[in-house]
Parts: sequence; structure tokens; C-alpha cells
Amino acid sequence: MDSFFEEALNQAKKSFQEGGIPIGSVLVHNGQIIGKGHNRRIQQGSVILHGEMDALENAGRQDAAIYKQSTIYTTLSPCPMCTGAILLYGIPKVVIGENKTFLGAEDLLKQHGVEVVVLDNQECVDLMDAFIQKNPEEWNEDIGEESSKK
Amino acid sequence: MDSFFEEALNQAKKSFQEGGIPIGSVLVHNGQIIGKGHNRRIQQGSVILHGEMDALENAGRQDAAIYKQSTIYTTLSPCPMCTGAILLYGIPKVVIGENKTFLGAEDLLKQHGVEVVVLDNQECVDLMDAFIQKNPEEWNEDIGEESSKK
Repeated sequence: MDSFFEEALNQAKKSFQEGGIPIGSVLVHNGQIIGKGHNRRIQQGSVILHGEMDALENAGRQDAAIYKQSTIYTTLSPCPMCTGAILLYGIPKVVIGENKTFLGAEDLLKQHGVEVVVLDNQECVDLMDAFIQKNPEEWNEDIGEESSKK
Repeated sequence: MDSFFEEALNQAKKSFQEGGIPIGSVLVHNGQIIGKGHNRRIQQGSVILHGEMDALENAGRQDAAIYKQSTIYTTLSPCPMCTGAILLYGIPKVVIGENKTFLGAEDLLKQHGVEVVVLDNQECVDLMDAFIQKNPEEWNEDIGEESSKK
């Protein structure tokens, strides 16, 4: 497994172990991880710290040119918010663990010329399945969907 | 002036007084402000806390149904990231102070059926002008553009 994707997956596992939504991400520039993170809805009560957003935030302030030479890895297909952040900073490549659990705004990424690679990684699917089975409402909340249970 | 927009403008002024990028936002549900905030790039070194994102974050975890009955006010046209957050949560209406300094992804909002109101407020333009004249590099960084000075 690609070591960068492996670290994104490790971040997802870390979030799962914390009781959080198991989505992780890393931002890679020039062969180095410059930011990594995971979803923090449960852990911090955050509505904006999806995995990708947390990785970007943890990378800190970067020159525009850095983003434009970077790749972002994420274990799950990026939602519209994370897609928008990728477009804002002009990140040219996104490597996605899986898009079966949730298909994000991949079309919008492609329309803007972003290279999108989907790995179809079963471990990512299994982690999400394990979380969603126990916490369907929290997952619906994370993607702005009304829970059928409410 | 609409009191909700006035509070978004107050948030922008607060950010300006702190030395930050003068963009403010409020999230309004059922006639009440449930979240307010402003850009925090300079103040907190944040690359994701644009005004709208800060207002959403400060509103905290909300049921999906709440967002779908809310309006977000922002002093400046929302960038792709903030637009994506608005789409993720299904906020149906965006009131924008101005879009002369920066035209965000308003077309994408409209394509998704979001009502977009632009106030053409001169005070918002003047605040941004005052900031950008003194800090062109910080502003370029905030919108992912390479500075001509570098």
C-alpha cells in the first residue's frame, strides 16, 4: 500500500478508536506529509473538521504555490465542502480510498481539472460500515442528511 | 440595514480591528442568530476559518433540518470552500455584502437552487480595500492565489 494512503487510513483508524467518524486524510507535498488529520465531529463537536479539512488546517498556512504542487489523500470521497477547499487552494490531485459509502463531488473536481484516483479500498469501506451501523444518526449529520430515525 | 447583515458586518469590523481579514458572517435560523464568526487566518493561523466557516463552526452541531431552514449572511461573496459547506448542509439562502472585491462560486450556489442576494454594500468594499492595500499577500493567500510580490 502507498505509504501516504496508509497514513490517511491510520488517521481514519485513530478516529474510529476515539469513537469518531473514521475518515482520515493527509496532504503531501514534494514527497513529504505536510498535514494530516481526521474527522472531528464527535471528538471536538466540529461541523467543519472533516478529515480533509483537518489535514489542511494542520498543515498550517502555506504559500499558494505549495498547494498547487500537492496531493491530498482521503479515505472517503470528498463532500462538497472538502471539494470546495481542494478547489480553493488548487490542489491538483486527490487520491480517494473509496466512494461506495458516500459519493462526494468527484464530478466537480474533474470539471475543474483535478486528477481523481479511487482505490476501492475495502478496509475503508469496512471501517465506515462498522461506524455507521452503530451510529447512523451521527453519520447522517456529518453529510447534512436528515436521519430517518428522528 | 437588516440587523442580521449588520451583525455580519460587525464581525468583519471586529476582524479588521484585530488585524485580520475583514470578512464576517452569521447563520440565522427562525429569526435568531445561531452562529457568528469572522475570518481567522491572521488571528489563529487558520486556513479553513473563513468567515462563513467560523459562523458554521460556532453554531455547533445542528440537526440537518435546522440548516435547511437557515440563511447565512456574509460580507463577501463565498469562495468555493464556503460554497461547498453551504451546499453540504443544504442552506437555502445566502445574503452577500458585496462581490466586487472577489466573486466566489455564486453560480454553483444558484445551480443548486440556493437563493443568492447581493447587497452591494459599500462599507464591505471599503473594509476589504483598506485591508488589501496594506496586506496584499495575506489576501492572496486567503483565496489560494500566488502573490505577484513573491
